[in-house]
Amino acid sequence: MNQQKAEIAVLGAGSWGTALAMVLADNGHKVRLWSHNNEQVQEINHEHTNKKYLPEIILPELIVGHASLNDALTGIETVILAVPTKAIREVVGKMKAVATKPLTIAHVSKGIEPDTLMRISELIEEEMPKEFIKAIVVLSGPSHAEEVSLRYPTTVTVSSENMAAAEEIQDLFINQNYFRVYTNPDVIGVEIGGALKNIIALAAGITDGLGYGDNAKAALMTRGLAEISRLGTKMGANPLTFSGLTGIGDLIVTCTSVHSRNWRAGNMLGKGKSLEEVLDSMGMVVEGVRTTKAAYQLARKYDVKMPITFALYDVLFNGKNAKDAVDVLMSRGKTNEMEDLVNILGERNHEN
Amino acid sequence: MNQQKAEIAVLGAGSWGTALAMVLADNGHKVRLWSHNNEQVQEINHEHTNKKYLPEIILPELIVGHASLNDALTGIETVILAVPTKAIREVVGKMKAVATKPLTIAHVSKGIEPDTLMRISELIEEEMPKEFIKAIVVLSGPSHAEEVSLRYPTTVTVSSENMAAAEEIQDLFINQNYFRVYTNPDVIGVEIGGALKNIIALAAGITDGLGYGDNAKAALMTRGLAEISRLGTKMGANPLTFSGLTGIGDLIVTCTSVHSRNWRAGNMLGKGKSLEEVLDSMGMVVEGVRTTKAAYQLARKYDVKMPITFALYDVLFNGKNAKDAVDVLMSRGKTNEMEDLVNILGERNHEN
Repeated sequence: MNQQKAEIAVLGAGSWGTALAMVLADNGHKVRLWSHNNEQVQEINHEHTNKKYLPEIILPELIVGHASLNDALTGIETVILAVPTKAIREVVGKMKAVATKPLTIAHVSKGIEPDTLMRISELIEEEMPKEFIKAIVVLSGPSHAEEVSLRYPTTVTVSSENMAAAEEIQDLFINQNYFRVYTNPDVIGVEIGGALKNIIALAAGITDGLGYGDNAKAALMTRGLAEISRLGTKMGANPLTFSGLTGIGDLIVTCTSVHSRNWRAGNMLGKGKSLEEVLDSMGMVVEGVRTTKAAYQLARKYDVKMPITFALYDVLFNGKNAKDAVDVLMSRGKTNEMEDLVNILGERNHEN
Repeated sequence: MNQQKAEIAVLGAGSWGTALAMVLADNGHKVRLWSHNNEQVQEINHEHTNKKYLPEIILPELIVGHASLNDALTGIETVILAVPTKAIREVVGKMKAVATKPLTIAHVSKGIEPDTLMRISELIEEEMPKEFIKAIVVLSGPSHAEEVSLRYPTTVTVSSENMAAAEEIQDLFINQNYFRVYTNPDVIGVEIGGALKNIIALAAGITDGLGYGDNAKAALMTRGLAEISRLGTKMGANPLTFSGLTGIGDLIVTCTSVHSRNWRAGNMLGKGKSLEEVLDSMGMVVEGVRTTKAAYQLARKYDVKMPITFALYDVLFNGKNAKDAVDVLMSRGKTNEMEDLVNILGERNHEN
């Protein structure tokens, strides 16, 4: 904790990148906050605000905006990658063009690449030449950016195949005032939990839109977590990760907040709107829609039962009625709560 | 599912007992609903209502009220025990006085007996002579009684050391319309999860009362589940049960509903009221207060770290300021998310 103050690049000045830059600055670190938008960079440097993403906030002076990726990365050893999932390949492509030494890259994005079905850290590892990677870390957990920027108490988890690197990231972000960072060595579990919770948030929005009540929503979240856990475990995750901050914690924040874009989209679907109408009225990407497609493919690839994901897939892509889809979920045969997961763990032990 | 229609006694005509009686009646079973309050029994039989507990509801005619426990139990083989935790010993004592043959007793209560630190099924087993016990079953899960009585979709779990008996209870309650029942063989996990979630609901009410935001509440619920899981696992539960309906599912319903008595009590504590003021203004039992004391004793007995429970204990019984207690939780040393649970599982494997 008596670590020397570092200089860190945060790539992506959306709400989450900016909020994380603020945590680093509050901890005394210099931050280079990169955005491809030069006007935004000027606002950050001259007004110390980023009004589009965090309207009420004054940024600490230790945060300096950069529009040039080269300037943002020169001499830097630690990069926080905070761009949207679909922009990661492009930004990492630009990073490798200007990188000169091995980097610790901590990403904070949640998703699965649709065609390759890669997790974010796999994608980074594939895109970035080995000589420029010191370590890849993921930071995830229940964290509305707005609350972090208001310095409300928040806890997150960092994970990496290189746990010394994860602990370095933990040291950079942790403080005694409002930001608490745990470690967990299970990269697969942390990344799958973060990505797939958006599916369940969509589905929870649907049950709320249908007016099905709190019992149904809690059951959906629980059974949703169970199917995420089954898939993740089959992919090699530790099932216990899904009951941690990056699993159930993040799921709770996303499903119970009206601020969640995925929940809102689901809510409109539940009220009878079509996917086209919903996406039109949102005017922005609903990550859960892409992730549902990816998870559907993963479930088929790994041969895992994911009834909620499959029902949602039918609603989103096969024009199935939302109410019918939810009602089918309620009328499945009698089962033991755990049997699928227990079978998967059994198979895994058998294979080992 | 093509089971013959049975006649079942439901003891306790509060909101949960009455709602469960309605599910049984909807499934075609005759129900004898026992209450010690004769006026209430008359209302049930003549008005087909139970307005004190479920104001808007008309009861099915298959439900018949009984004020005599002897009448309610004569010839019966299956009993649903739906009285408050603190009344169980007394009611089981009365049952044994009128029992004539072995009974399947399914209880639906959530708590730990303060002085003995017994789970409910242990308490029933101790109080009821062996010759009158065919099986003891627990039914638990995320289920506001009001929503069940409105036939909103709901899922619960049944558990027993005698899984054939649990499946009989499953068959009695499950239906295709709104009530879904899973089985889980882990009695300890199901009972500990149901009881201890009330502690976390109190604590979640406190963070909400302090205005700490959604990130903090999700973290508290997650870390709360982790400490319940550590204790339960040390007591012999399957850790996976805590990520199921009776663990995280019930925790979600209890912590995110303003209808939860425990959450409301915590909320008032967070806003600066004293425990006396809170209990006075509630005018009824707040189960989480009793359970906090019992869990505190269990944690000491089993030597398990339960920082949230301990902090809450200090707020409730040692006059500690709620804000200070929560802030202490945020400033604990750096830890690995899972290490305590992993250590407990390691110890258990070592002992086996």
